[in-house]
Amino acid sequence: MNFGVIGYGYWGPNVVRNLASLEGSQVLSIAELNPAAQARARKAYPGIRVTADTSEVLTSPDIDAIAVITPVWTHYELAKAALENGKHVFVEKPFTSNVAQGEKLIDLATRKNLRIMVDHTFLFTGAVRKISQQLREGTLGKLYYYDSTRVNLGLFQHDINVLWDLAPHDLSIMDYVIDGNPEAVVATGQSHLNCHEDVAFMTLYFPESVIAHINVNWLSPVKVRTTLIGGEKRMLVWNDLEADEKVKVYDKGVNITNNEGLYSLLVNYRSGDMWSPQLEQVEALRQELSYFVDCISTGQDPFNDGCAGLRVVKMLEAASESMSKRGSLVYL
Amino acid sequence: MNFGVIGYGYWGPNVVRNLASLEGSQVLSIAELNPAAQARARKAYPGIRVTADTSEVLTSPDIDAIAVITPVWTHYELAKAALENGKHVFVEKPFTSNVAQGEKLIDLATRKNLRIMVDHTFLFTGAVRKISQQLREGTLGKLYYYDSTRVNLGLFQHDINVLWDLAPHDLSIMDYVIDGNPEAVVATGQSHLNCHEDVAFMTLYFPESVIAHINVNWLSPVKVRTTLIGGEKRMLVWNDLEADEKVKVYDKGVNITNNEGLYSLLVNYRSGDMWSPQLEQVEALRQELSYFVDCISTGQDPFNDGCAGLRVVKMLEAASESMSKRGSLVYL
Amino acid sequence: MNFGVIGYGYWGPNVVRNLASLEGSQVLSIAELNPAAQARARKAYPGIRVTADTSEVLTSPDIDAIAVITPVWTHYELAKAALENGKHVFVEKPFTSNVAQGEKLIDLATRKNLRIMVDHTFLFTGAVRKISQQLREGTLGKLYYYDSTRVNLGLFQHDINVLWDLAPHDLSIMDYVIDGNPEAVVATGQSHLNCHEDVAFMTLYFPESVIAHINVNWLSPVKVRTTLIGGEKRMLVWNDLEADEKVKVYDKGVNITNNEGLYSLLVNYRSGDMWSPQLEQVEALRQELSYFVDCISTGQDPFNDGCAGLRVVKMLEAASESMSKRGSLVYL
Amino acid sequence: MNFGVIGYGYWGPNVVRNLASLEGSQVLSIAELNPAAQARARKAYPGIRVTADTSEVLTSPDIDAIAVITPVWTHYELAKAALENGKHVFVEKPFTSNVAQGEKLIDLATRKNLRIMVDHTFLFTGAVRKISQQLREGTLGKLYYYDSTRVNLGLFQHDINVLWDLAPHDLSIMDYVIDGNPEAVVATGQSHLNCHEDVAFMTLYFPESVIAHINVNWLSPVKVRTTLIGGEKRMLVWNDLEADEKVKVYDKGVNITNNEGLYSLLVNYRSGDMWSPQLEQVEALRQELSYFVDCISTGQDPFNDGCAGLRVVKMLEAASESMSKRGSLVYL
Repeated sequence: MNFGVIGYGYWGPNVVRNLASLEGSQVLSIAELNPAAQARARKAYPGIRVTADTSEVLTSPDIDAIAVITPVWTHYELAKAALENGKHVFVEKPFTSNVAQGEKLIDLATRKNLRIMVDHTFLFTGAVRKISQQLREGTLGKLYYYDSTRVNLGLFQHDINVLWDLAPHDLSIMDYVIDGNPEAVVATGQSHLNCHEDVAFMTLYFPESVIAHINVNWLSPVKVRTTLIGGEKRMLVWNDLEADEKVKVYDKGVNITNNEGLYSLLVNYRSGDMWSPQLEQVEALRQELSYFVDCISTGQDPFNDGCAGLRVVKMLEAASESMSKRGSLVYL
Repeated sequence: MNFGVIGYGYWGPNVVRNLASLEGSQVLSIAELNPAAQARARKAYPGIRVTADTSEVLTSPDIDAIAVITPVWTHYELAKAALENGKHVFVEKPFTSNVAQGEKLIDLATRKNLRIMVDHTFLFTGAVRKISQQLREGTLGKLYYYDSTRVNLGLFQHDINVLWDLAPHDLSIMDYVIDGNPEAVVATGQSHLNCHEDVAFMTLYFPESVIAHINVNWLSPVKVRTTLIGGEKRMLVWNDLEADEKVKVYDKGVNITNNEGLYSLLVNYRSGDMWSPQLEQVEALRQELSYFVDCISTGQDPFNDGCAGLRVVKMLEAASESMSKRGSLVYL
Repeated sequence: MNFGVIGYGYWGPNVVRNLASLEGSQVLSIAELNPAAQARARKAYPGIRVTADTSEVLTSPDIDAIAVITPVWTHYELAKAALENGKHVFVEKPFTSNVAQGEKLIDLATRKNLRIMVDHTFLFTGAVRKISQQLREGTLGKLYYYDSTRVNLGLFQHDINVLWDLAPHDLSIMDYVIDGNPEAVVATGQSHLNCHEDVAFMTLYFPESVIAHINVNWLSPVKVRTTLIGGEKRMLVWNDLEADEKVKVYDKGVNITNNEGLYSLLVNYRSGDMWSPQLEQVEALRQELSYFVDCISTGQDPFNDGCAGLRVVKMLEAASESMSKRGSLVYL
Repeated sequence: MNFGVIGYGYWGPNVVRNLASLEGSQVLSIAELNPAAQARARKAYPGIRVTADTSEVLTSPDIDAIAVITPVWTHYELAKAALENGKHVFVEKPFTSNVAQGEKLIDLATRKNLRIMVDHTFLFTGAVRKISQQLREGTLGKLYYYDSTRVNLGLFQHDINVLWDLAPHDLSIMDYVIDGNPEAVVATGQSHLNCHEDVAFMTLYFPESVIAHINVNWLSPVKVRTTLIGGEKRMLVWNDLEADEKVKVYDKGVNITNNEGLYSLLVNYRSGDMWSPQLEQVEALRQELSYFVDCISTGQDPFNDGCAGLRVVKMLEAASESMSKRGSLVYL
């Protein structure tokens, strides 16, 4: 499978490194506008053509698939051109800048029988696979809430706010591990340094009393990557910054009891062992790209296809609308 | 100063222990309905009268001040009776169940020239004093945000939701350390076990782009007590669960720079030393009660008076209204 | 069971509090030389006689057992007098200042058919009970090593060095959980502020290649209470400063493989899940004193009897001898 | 400066990567016996000659300096051949297998006017530089102790024990930051899986009551890299596993006071702020190799020269002797 890669900035080198070393794929050319990044690409990969001419990569007859690793606002035009030229597309998250763009790309790929994969890398980590397994197998029981904090002194993006930058990770994971789709969204936030919000909070209402919450922040002095997941039977903490023991499952919970007394409590606590399962130690992006090569070969749509990417964009679009109204409820 | 204490449940024993051992105060009687709690009080304080008759305490001519350490829904009636009987009142947080009650109590106390203190204990901790000092002295520069997480497998209350139970701590601290009052509130949440929300999230919009956020949860497998405070010049993390080093001040920040390039970033990071100031190691409740005795003696209103308590109740009432509408913006 | 308590300094109040509230025991009198401590005892326990006259307590005909909670160098004379007066003895760790004293007390107690219990409180904690269970049940497989770090900015003792102050905890636990007795000891250390060592390190050679090590330090800026226990099948970490998850069992290990290559490694790593068992949440001292009352009633020697205390003193005496020679091997 | 590199196993690739990208140096050839490692080198560096013939590299007239990145037992012969062929030598730690070998290499280099640098990489980290600065500038006051724990489930070496593998890091740092040389060594340890000790403890007596201690372990379930440094005025903790805040300086200490009372304490504690200085974020190995290139150019001996390497080997040799006698004192 021959790849062209557009964009060799922060994340592009990781995509090229994996595509270049995977069995079954190779990178023929890289399009990149920044001269310094071009130089880095040429030095690292003497055998790969590096060009500033994006259309050369998009139209090359030797190329089967295009990886679009550029800012969000360019995704639509680049992915559209790639599809129109008959190329499969691997596109950085978030999928597109708005819902309409995403729908058009999905439609185009369907008509052309091409694959779209949206780079929701976290779905291929050992942690998310283990969490998904726990939820599917019922270890946690009925889901109560999903609460993620993802803050750091962050890479400010100049075309999107902090929600569009950081929340796609959490939204794609929620979309993957929670049954059902969110019904409504409330988002709040504030910008301090330019026009885009650098601090934001997002609540999603799912069916059956499941509530999800995301806290994203580009102005935090410390890095936090912690997700709490509460269920009826057990509860889970995922701390992605732990070297080991990223996922911990707690045999803890509460049982409601009748209690007539005035000053006493309604609930009994249940507390038991904690268990931290070993996680797969593979590079998630490598797994994801290998899976993409497989999907192209077999003609199957990946589970993180354009539709998955679109569901995330829908939530982001709704969140932006809610945030612009300082937190009004927006139905999905 | 002679005290009567109403309520000897979870927090009451701490109030009695401090009032009994402080110079300048003593406890004459305790009213408590639960027989087991009565027995504990009698065993610990053979010299204090323990009774189930609340009115006996409220009307005793020897008593100067009443500490009301009971569930929220009882605060108004008890505090009102105390004031009507000419007693000063120390009342557990949150002050009252609604704004109207709080206003009536303040009015009554003013007319009777009596002191009300609302038990916002955290304001007397070494951590909050140090944080307040940092903000006042400009160490952090202009304030950007205040973000608190206060979750644990929690003491379910049967008369209030998790916001009314846990958020008063954060709201009273914000009220104390942030200049200006919040303009509007958005709150979201969900109940899973009974009619009261056990998970809730609250955003407060302050003037000048200051945003505050509170995450409270009775269903968390782990206890978290972390507050991030971001400013233009420095940022602060308060982790109240650390044995030492509860407060850390980071010489970190961002500087906006012009940047014309397509793929590059807009912001420069600034990173320097971290500094963890030593904190006073006194018991906060002891400090607070000692201050209350002083205020009664001097006839001065404490800074955590009924008005401070009322401001917190206003925010809680607005948050409840917002949460009941699944996150609509409520102006204060 | 009527108790007399000698010593109401740092630890004595905890002993009195438990003996006074346990069913089956009461405290009749407390001997304490320090007037301030006497005053505290009188205020807390109006019903208990407090005196500076130790012999009054030792000879009182109403008293069945004496708790000796005083500095080490006084243990022998006080315990001897108690036994000679026909009282059972609960004595603070370390048991005595030297082996000869310990042997005499054991001999005396045997002749008088009295019980001695040495206050090795840690043996009654949920953590040590769980660790002991893991080792007995073979969860860890054959034991390889036991390595404890117990450092803090510490309570300097003026009659003993840091080994005699802090190591008894670890030595009593090792004595309890490791099969067999140590064969030899090496200890090193240094004094910086007075004649007693404030930093010390101790290695114990047990049979079958088991090695134990203790790191104790009165001059550490941070408090550490961590024990690593390595076994053939699994390994365990006990961090006593964790609020929860004090004990973690790791399904980790190494397997030796033949390997002829020059630059390659000899050993395969094995890594699996981690498991943190829930621990009993009882106060260890309360459990221990309740057990002492039982032992007196039934006439059975406790497992933490004088012989257990003596084994710890033997290790300390050997360690002191080794340390005075800057680390020579001393056989036990 | 043209380099030959011998050994492309675990650490060699890092040396090659830096030498190849530094200004002022390039790698002409790599000698490596293992075919798989050869293949990796060829793929990564198509322009560098890769050979199994070590002597080809050692004798090449184009090569100015040789990096010896092989097991310890090969260092002497390889470095000797390099020096005899007129090449400067960069050699992996520990310098040699014994003192005699080290002395011969130093002598040979002196006679040939060639530079030897021993790869004590840690001396070039931001953390060690900052610690050294604190000690030199007197921030900590008179040094009391240096205590390092360096344990993990470790890379077993088949030619050396855990002391020779892990302790050189700490010994080279001590040699760098502590004034004066150690007078005597005591080491204890145990082997469990083959003939080499996998758990070991080492005490070093320095002049003026300074004591140092190293705890190394290949069989620990958790990785620990923590050093405590105590001084008269302040104390320091270096946790190398922290992402940020690796070095913390505590304004803590003790003051001796006269105290005549029997049960009371001798020492007052002093506690103040903690301060975590920002550290340089450069790759230590890169700094070190750049410095080596400078030293060769200027003809100056590096501070981590053969003599520095030899001092570490002397401590290791003495420790091995002590450990073989189960902890006897060995003078240096």
